[in-house]
Amino acid sequence: MSALIEPKVLKGFRDFLPERESQRLAIIGRLEESLRLFGFPPIDTPVLEYAEILLGKGGGETDKQVYRFTDHGGRDVALRYDLTVPFARFMAAHLSELPLPFKRYHAAKVWRGENTQRGRYREFMQVDFDIVGADSASADLETLLLIRECMQRLGLERFTIRYAHRGVFSEFLSGLGLSDKSVDVLRIIDKERKIGREKAGMMLSEIVGDALTAKIMDFITVGASTMDTLEKIKAAAGDSADGMARLTELSRCLSDLGYRDRFVLDPSITRGLDYYTGLVCETFLSDLPEIGSICSGGRYNELASLYTRQSLPGVGASIGLDRLMAAMEELKILPPAAAGPSVLVFFLEDALLSSYHRYAAELRAAGIPAEVFPENKKLPAQFAYAEKRGIRFALIHGQEEAAKGTVGLKDLRTRESWQDLSPAEAVEKTKELLR
Amino acid sequence: MSALIEPKVLKGFRDFLPERESQRLAIIGRLEESLRLFGFPPIDTPVLEYAEILLGKGGGETDKQVYRFTDHGGRDVALRYDLTVPFARFMAAHLSELPLPFKRYHAAKVWRGENTQRGRYREFMQVDFDIVGADSASADLETLLLIRECMQRLGLERFTIRYAHRGVFSEFLSGLGLSDKSVDVLRIIDKERKIGREKAGMMLSEIVGDALTAKIMDFITVGASTMDTLEKIKAAAGDSADGMARLTELSRCLSDLGYRDRFVLDPSITRGLDYYTGLVCETFLSDLPEIGSICSGGRYNELASLYTRQSLPGVGASIGLDRLMAAMEELKILPPAAAGPSVLVFFLEDALLSSYHRYAAELRAAGIPAEVFPENKKLPAQFAYAEKRGIRFALIHGQEEAAKGTVGLKDLRTRESWQDLSPAEAVEKTKELLR
Repeated sequence: MSALIEPKVLKGFRDFLPERESQRLAIIGRLEESLRLFGFPPIDTPVLEYAEILLGKGGGETDKQVYRFTDHGGRDVALRYDLTVPFARFMAAHLSELPLPFKRYHAAKVWRGENTQRGRYREFMQVDFDIVGADSASADLETLLLIRECMQRLGLERFTIRYAHRGVFSEFLSGLGLSDKSVDVLRIIDKERKIGREKAGMMLSEIVGDALTAKIMDFITVGASTMDTLEKIKAAAGDSADGMARLTELSRCLSDLGYRDRFVLDPSITRGLDYYTGLVCETFLSDLPEIGSICSGGRYNELASLYTRQSLPGVGASIGLDRLMAAMEELKILPPAAAGPSVLVFFLEDALLSSYHRYAAELRAAGIPAEVFPENKKLPAQFAYAEKRGIRFALIHGQEEAAKGTVGLKDLRTRESWQDLSPAEAVEKTKELLR
Repeated sequence: MSALIEPKVLKGFRDFLPERESQRLAIIGRLEESLRLFGFPPIDTPVLEYAEILLGKGGGETDKQVYRFTDHGGRDVALRYDLTVPFARFMAAHLSELPLPFKRYHAAKVWRGENTQRGRYREFMQVDFDIVGADSASADLETLLLIRECMQRLGLERFTIRYAHRGVFSEFLSGLGLSDKSVDVLRIIDKERKIGREKAGMMLSEIVGDALTAKIMDFITVGASTMDTLEKIKAAAGDSADGMARLTELSRCLSDLGYRDRFVLDPSITRGLDYYTGLVCETFLSDLPEIGSICSGGRYNELASLYTRQSLPGVGASIGLDRLMAAMEELKILPPAAAGPSVLVFFLEDALLSSYHRYAAELRAAGIPAEVFPENKKLPAQFAYAEKRGIRFALIHGQEEAAKGTVGLKDLRTRESWQDLSPAEAVEKTKELLR
C-alpha cells in the first residue's frame, strides 16, 4: 500500500460545501437580479493573463502578492488579482465591438498571495460593475443607486453609503501646497477609519506639520448636514474646483430622490488606489463597522490608458463577496441553503428499479425535485439519509404496493402518510403539500 | 507618452462579451435546473491546489499540460486540469461532514496547456456531476437519465447516449490473454470513432495480431438490437463476468422506461482514462458526429484512494461546456442572449436628472429593467444607443413634459408612441406591452 497524500487545500484557499456554495450562488443570483434591472450585462475574461497586462511595464505595490509564473511557452503570466485591470484590457481589446457608453458586470474569483492572518483569503470573489464612456453625474448617480439596490436586495437594512470626490480633495491639497505629498496624505486618510483619528493625525503631522494637519482633519470631518459639509468643502477647496459642481449635483439628486438617510457626504472617503479621479464611495454596515467597506468604488477617468490612447472615463464599484457573506452570516441574514430534493423514492425491491426511476421522472416532470435512494438498503438507512439531506417526502413502493399498482407517500416532517395512491395522485398530493 | 501595452489575451484563452457570456450563463442555468430536479447540490473547490494532490506522487500523461509553478511560499502548486481530481481530494477531506451517498455538481473552469491547433482551448469550462458512496445499478441509471435530461433541457433533439461496461471489456480481454495489453487496446478502441475502423484495426494488429484483432473488432460491433448486443457480449466475455448482470439490468431498465431510442449499448465505448471500472458512456449529436462526445462519464470504484483508505465507489459524468456551446451554435439552438434593459429613459435636460432616475426606479420597482442614458446628448445618439443595446422603449421627459408633469413613451420596435402619460401610467403601459 502506498502512502496516502494528505487531502489538504492551500492556506488561504477554501472548499465550499453544498450548503455554503448554494448560499453563495443565491447571493450572486440576487446581485445579478439587481444588475439586470439596472441594465448591466455579464462578461467574462481569462483567469490567466500576460503579467505585463496585469502589472504594467513597471510593477506597483501589488506585485509581491500576485501569483506570477512562466508557462510552458515561456510566457510571463499571472493570475488576475482584481477584475478592474482585466476589464481595462478587455475594453481596449474590444472597443470597436462594444456600444459606448458600455456597462457590464463581472462576478468572478481573484487571487492575491496576501497575509492570511487577518482572516483574509488568497482566493476570493468579487462582483464588479462599471459604466465606461461617460463622465457624467448621471453615471456616478447610477453607480450609487445600484449599490443601494444591491444591499437592499440582500436584505441588509442598516447600511450607509459614504461618498466624496477625489478631485475636490486633490484641489484642496493643492491649495495647501501639498500636491507633491497628496499620495501619502490620501493613504493616511484612507486608513483613518481603521487606525483612528488620533493616530492618523500623528502620521499626518510628521509629513505636513501641525498647522496643515489641523486643516486636513477639519476638511475630512462630516458636517451637521450635507449642505453644511458641501459649504465646508467649498470654503476649503474653492468653488472653482472641478468636482465641486458634480458633488453638489449628486448630493442634490440623492436628496431629491429621498435617499438622504442612506447616503452620507463624507470627505474622509478617499480610497487608497491611485486611479480614482472623481466620485469615491464606500459602504458600511452600521452593526458591523469593524469589517470595513463591503462595496467600494468610484470614478477613474483613464481606465485603459496603458493599452489604448482612446480616453475611457468610467465609474463603477466592486462588491467583496467573501466579506459580504461573512457579514450576512453574522447578521443571520444569509439566504437559506438550497433544500435537498423534495421527494426520496425509497428503494425496497431490486425488481422494481425501473418503477422507482419512473416515479422520480413523473415527479420531476411536474417540477418536483426527486431522487431514488441508490441502493436496496434497510429502511432506517434510507430514512436517515432523507433526514440528513433535508428531504421532506418519502415515496414508498414495495412488494405490497406493486401488487396493487399503488404507492404510499409519507411527509417526513409531520409524520402524516397516505396509502393506496396512484402514482399520478402521489404527484398531485406532493404538489399540493408543497404549495 | 509611454508605449502602449498590446491588450491581447493568451493563446487558447478567451474573453466572453455580453452576448456570449449571457448565453453561457443561460446554458449553465438550464443545466442547474436539471441538476436540481435530480437532487444534486453545488460545491466549489480552489482553482489552485498542491501539485502533489493533482498529479499524484509520480505524475502521469497530463503532466506536460498542467500549469504548475512555485508560489511565494515555495509551494509546488498547479491549476486544476479537471474537476474530478479536486473532487476526490474534496471527498477525502470532508468525509465526516458529508452524507453518504453524496451527490454534487461543480460548474467551473479548468486549464490545460494543450495544443490549440485543433480548436481546443487552454481555459475551458466543465459541468461535472457525481454520486459517491454507492456501487449500484440505480446510481448508474440515474447518471444516464440525468445526461438525457440535461440534453433535452438544452433543446438538443437528435442525440444518442452510448454506454458500455469497462469491467466486462476487461474480462473479455483477459479471456483472450490480453490483460497485460489492455491499456493499449482500450486506448486504440477509444480512438476508433475518430481514426476510423480500418486504421484502428491496423493499430490493433500490430499489438495483438490479426486473429485477436478480428475477435476484438467483432466484440465492439453494435448488434441489431440491445438484446443481440448483450448476447454477443455475454458469449465473448462470459456470463460470469462481474459487470454482465449490471449491464443487463441497466439495459432492461432503459427499455422499461421507454428510452430505447436515446440509449445504445455500444461495446466500442471504453473511455481512455484509467480510472473507470464499470459503466462508461458518451453522448453524440446525430447532426454533428465530428465534434465527438459532449458529455462523457462512467463508474470508478476507487475515486479517492490517493488520499484515503476508505472505499468510495462513484459514478458521474462531465459536460464539456465549450464544445456543447459550439455545437448549439452550429445547430442554431443557443439560448437568446439576455436582452438589454426594456426601457431607456432619455436624458434631455440637465435640470431633470433626479426625475430621470426616479422614473427608472419606478420601472425597476415594477420589475422592468430600465436605465437612464448617462449624458445629455443629442437625440440621435440616444436612439442609436437604444438600438445597439436592443432596448425596446424610450421614456421621454423634456421641458414640455416637465411643465405638464407627464412623460411620453415610445415603442422603438413598432414606432408607436403615447403622450401625456403620468409616470405611473407609463409604468403600467410598459408592463402591458411587455406581456
